[in-house]
Amino acid sequence: MIELYELAGADPSIRFSPYCWRVRMALAHKGVSARLLPWHFGDKKLPGGVRQVPVLVDGGEVIVDSTVIARHLERKYPNGPSLFGGEGGEAHVRFIVAWADGVLIPALLPVVAPDLLRLVQPAAQASFREARERRMGMTFEAAARDRARLVTAARAVMAPLRSVLKDHEFLGGDEPSYADYAVFGPFQWMRCAGTADVLAQDDPIGEWRERMLDLFGDMAREASLAA
Amino acid sequence: MIELYELAGADPSIRFSPYCWRVRMALAHKGVSARLLPWHFGDKKLPGGVRQVPVLVDGGEVIVDSTVIARHLERKYPNGPSLFGGEGGEAHVRFIVAWADGVLIPALLPVVAPDLLRLVQPAAQASFREARERRMGMTFEAAARDRARLVTAARAVMAPLRSVLKDHEFLGGDEPSYADYAVFGPFQWMRCAGTADVLAQDDPIGEWRERMLDLFGDMAREASLAA
Repeated sequence: MIELYELAGADPSIRFSPYCWRVRMALAHKGVSARLLPWHFGDKKLPGGVRQVPVLVDGGEVIVDSTVIARHLERKYPNGPSLFGGEGGEAHVRFIVAWADGVLIPALLPVVAPDLLRLVQPAAQASFREARERRMGMTFEAAARDRARLVTAARAVMAPLRSVLKDHEFLGGDEPSYADYAVFGPFQWMRCAGTADVLAQDDPIGEWRERMLDLFGDMAREASLAA
Repeated sequence: MIELYELAGADPSIRFSPYCWRVRMALAHKGVSARLLPWHFGDKKLPGGVRQVPVLVDGGEVIVDSTVIARHLERKYPNGPSLFGGEGGEAHVRFIVAWADGVLIPALLPVVAPDLLRLVQPAAQASFREARERRMGMTFEAAARDRARLVTAARAVMAPLRSVLKDHEFLGGDEPSYADYAVFGPFQWMRCAGTADVLAQDDPIGEWRERMLDLFGDMAREASLAA
């Protein structure tokens, strides 16, 4: 049995990590089912002494890091639809993942962080806040005050996404690729946290997000969200 | 005979447009030779009444815009190596092109613009400067004074490139794709203008740039540069 350890909230049915969502989508893309196990900030019980999620345990092999897991799935399950579209595709997708990690998530973090805090179990909230404030270079209160400007800036950094989605259904073309899952992760993160209004109503990224929510029988749409 | 109209300097042997370089590299990738014709800012003599370069004229068909030209080459010359790696690849590459156009080139423009001015024929320098200053939101003098900060910012935006090049020879994987040409265009633009020091000496992007200069028998390396 394959196991995926995912970040869970105080309500363990809420799985809100953008990185874990990438893996959930990649597993579904490959038609591979996994037992989904909750992990909370501060828990010590991950296999192999690992201290972050997602962690995939596949036939005794412990694989850490969402991109490494995606490459593992591509190699181990070659009969399913390709996640990357071949070796060249893997490098192209890697660029989009790096952009999502280094540009998109940092732009969204100060907008979503105050909402995320409500999902975290009380005992971990202080260290969660401290680590995020250090990363953002501002307090949650300052981020909340500056929200309108931060939303405008986040919308601006999404320009390359809009450019692709003008002519293609997905970042992978006619079908989603791991690039779509890497970028969708942060959108599902916001959705789990109940963060609204980041996309303008007429933003074409919104239509793509609906297509992502449609995939795999509404898998991401039916996820548990913040009350 | 295929013809490519390229932006030329006051010295017509200097072809410095980042967009035209994309097409030069894509033609070489496909093994398609073209007659290279100079066009200067303000010239009125482009086919089809077009007012910007690159313009490709292929069997009477007039094709404008570097990305549209690349797609034309991919479809018309399917026997050469693929520029995109298939339909999914085309969407992935489109993201990287949009990033190069919307993030990389705007970050580099204030660093390279004062050097570019020396390449432009005197009659067009005033309008060239005015249009660039409007786009940059600063004068050339202000850009020159702020150069150190602008170089630091440009290096920071290149982070997704470094991430791919840690594990891959090219943005296309083992072989260059149109993503490599789209990103190399701005580096060749700086090279033609004599803009130095944008990459730190130990930046791994420098090794990739050397590999790009090696391609097609040193094609880009042997280009005419600012005196």
